[in-house]
Amino acid sequence: RGIQTITLIPGDGIGPEISCAVVKIFEAAKAPVQWEERNVTAIKGPGGRWMIPPDAKESMDRSKIGLKGPLKTPIAAGHPSMNLLLRKTFDLYANVRPCMSLEGYKTPYTDVDLVTIRENTEGEYSGIEHVIVDGVVQSIKLITEEASRRIAEYAFEYARNNQRASVTAVHKANIMRMSDGLFLKKCREMAENFKDVKFTEMYLDTVCLNMVQDPSQFDVLVMPNLYGDILSDLCAGLIGGLGVTPSGNIGTNGVAIFESVHGTAPDIAGMDLANPTALLLSAVMMLRHMGLHDHAKKIETACFDTIRDKKVLTKDLGGNSNAVGSSQRRSSVGLSS
Amino acid sequence: RGIQTITLIPGDGIGPEISCAVVKIFEAAKAPVQWEERNVTAIKGPGGRWMIPPDAKESMDRSKIGLKGPLKTPIAAGHPSMNLLLRKTFDLYANVRPCMSLEGYKTPYTDVDLVTIRENTEGEYSGIEHVIVDGVVQSIKLITEEASRRIAEYAFEYARNNQRASVTAVHKANIMRMSDGLFLKKCREMAENFKDVKFTEMYLDTVCLNMVQDPSQFDVLVMPNLYGDILSDLCAGLIGGLGVTPSGNIGTNGVAIFESVHGTAPDIAGMDLANPTALLLSAVMMLRHMGLHDHAKKIETACFDTIRDKKVLTKDLGGNSNAVGSSQRRSSVGLSS
Ligand SMILES: CC(C)[C@H](C(=O)O)[C@@H](O)C(=O)O
Ligand SMILES: CC(C)[C@H](C(=O)O)[C@@H](O)C(=O)O
Repeated sequence: RGIQTITLIPGDGIGPEISCAVVKIFEAAKAPVQWEERNVTAIKGPGGRWMIPPDAKESMDRSKIGLKGPLKTPIAAGHPSMNLLLRKTFDLYANVRPCMSLEGYKTPYTDVDLVTIRENTEGEYSGIEHVIVDGVVQSIKLITEEASRRIAEYAFEYARNNQRASVTAVHKANIMRMSDGLFLKKCREMAENFKDVKFTEMYLDTVCLNMVQDPSQFDVLVMPNLYGDILSDLCAGLIGGLGVTPSGNIGTNGVAIFESVHGTAPDIAGMDLANPTALLLSAVMMLRHMGLHDHAKKIETACFDTIRDKKVLTKDLGGNSNAVGSSQRRSSVGLSS
Repeated sequence: RGIQTITLIPGDGIGPEISCAVVKIFEAAKAPVQWEERNVTAIKGPGGRWMIPPDAKESMDRSKIGLKGPLKTPIAAGHPSMNLLLRKTFDLYANVRPCMSLEGYKTPYTDVDLVTIRENTEGEYSGIEHVIVDGVVQSIKLITEEASRRIAEYAFEYARNNQRASVTAVHKANIMRMSDGLFLKKCREMAENFKDVKFTEMYLDTVCLNMVQDPSQFDVLVMPNLYGDILSDLCAGLIGGLGVTPSGNIGTNGVAIFESVHGTAPDIAGMDLANPTALLLSAVMMLRHMGLHDHAKKIETACFDTIRDKKVLTKDLGGNSNAVGSSQRRSSVGLSS
């Protein structure tokens, strides 16, 4: 296997410095990858539609794999969230966020070891909204059989391939009988094909309640878009927050973008204080996705060991260390593209 | 002030025994109330529409105040949730759930002292759903200016009247720009009329994350229907679960129903093992709503003291005590109606 190309989208704020840290760690681990750095500030395409710049699109189309830092939320009216635009442009239908207690990072919870799998293309994120009459607005939650089927299939395959015992479908089909009902039906049907994986279903509110009381009871959770947005953040909170939790957006034919889901932290950007853990663990997910399991394991172990040892920690984890080194404080990763 | 009438809906499963416990405690506290026990099993009205029985409706119309135990979820197709039907029938637009750490009931969190205020009539609970074409379903989230305005007003008035410093509007207006956008706009406008109350706004996902990391930062939270369903359960989980958290559904002209939001617990029903705390604290909210502050305080203090003292606890809190006494094990509260 030769050297694989990865599209690197450093992003804004602390994005370039944490990306720089990941690049250095990959070098040290001799990961057989090369980076193509791309900017994804949206541009207006024909007809005034916002789109990601052609050279970023072209790179992703070729490499199929992206690693992305945080992007600042655009303020222009009508400007889409870049995160959402990326998910949409590349049809990244599965958002996968593993959540594991980190030894050495104390929270009220131990033994958290779960994965949220979020439908990433429709549901409450359809973007379809109307004013019916003055003062009456509706937003449409769109659920399709096909998108529900493929996310259910993804969840069960994920469970099987990652030696996980159970999949829980999270829903409010008692309220949204047709939409969540359809989602749930597809999960139930898929469960029939995966008799080796235990299947349960639970109301979203009940999951939230049980999650904060005993998260160790959960394994793989699959759910519509908005519920995943909420639950993944809740779960991240249980183990230490968005600074230490990875995320992957998975599409078809191997296409995927891995990203840290924390913000751009403009207050500390460029100061080399940021914690690169979330992006690094996202990059570890990426290596596994690429089949580079040994490199993934090596880097992941080093990351967990470092946090457990408590000798080299960034400020957010109670330490004094820098991720990049002062000579590397920069606003770009500094790779030639 | 004379004796006020309360419509008592004991509900199913453990409902009658916890209702019985509350009635006895009210007697002991000499609360100037009399109870009218009513059953609310839905019946089919003219045109096949499900409705609550006329004698229950008539009692509520007269008394204006209800206290309700858990109701079992109907299984008949097309049968509505009785909880939702009650909220709708009496236009109970504000769902109020205070969440306070209980001294003596240890959870990972202390100093929780917040209130979720949930819009209770529309949003994701509109019940409007369609099949567009085969395999494509939509559910409509309906947000109106008027319902948003009145819940915002309720939240700010609640904060002011209960000496609370801040109101946080919880939303996803970055995604549902029009619907959550309208909700948020009404909250912002209302904030202008309540300069003595601090106003902040936060994304639902961020609230979930921060909530499990440090709930003590939150005070009054106001939000659309579904978000309230989720967040109120999450918050209940932080302090011990639905067995110890009260809830009130508030309408106009003093109409209100207070309820425990836990289930009917059929496995222990009739065994006098159930914890009446959630219903009792809901009844305390009810007394305050009726202006009976001294009786409210007396009962609330007794309840908190009992939990703190750890001498008389039900099984769920680690004790051996019964709430009613064996001679009172019954399937009805046993009041003449
Ligand atoms: C940035 C925002 C649009 C996004 C979302 O709502 O999905 C974020 O919260 C996430 O979870 O990735
Ligand atoms: C019983 C159910 C319909 C209800 C809801 O979804 O609102 C419950 O979860 C609640 O929070 O009161």
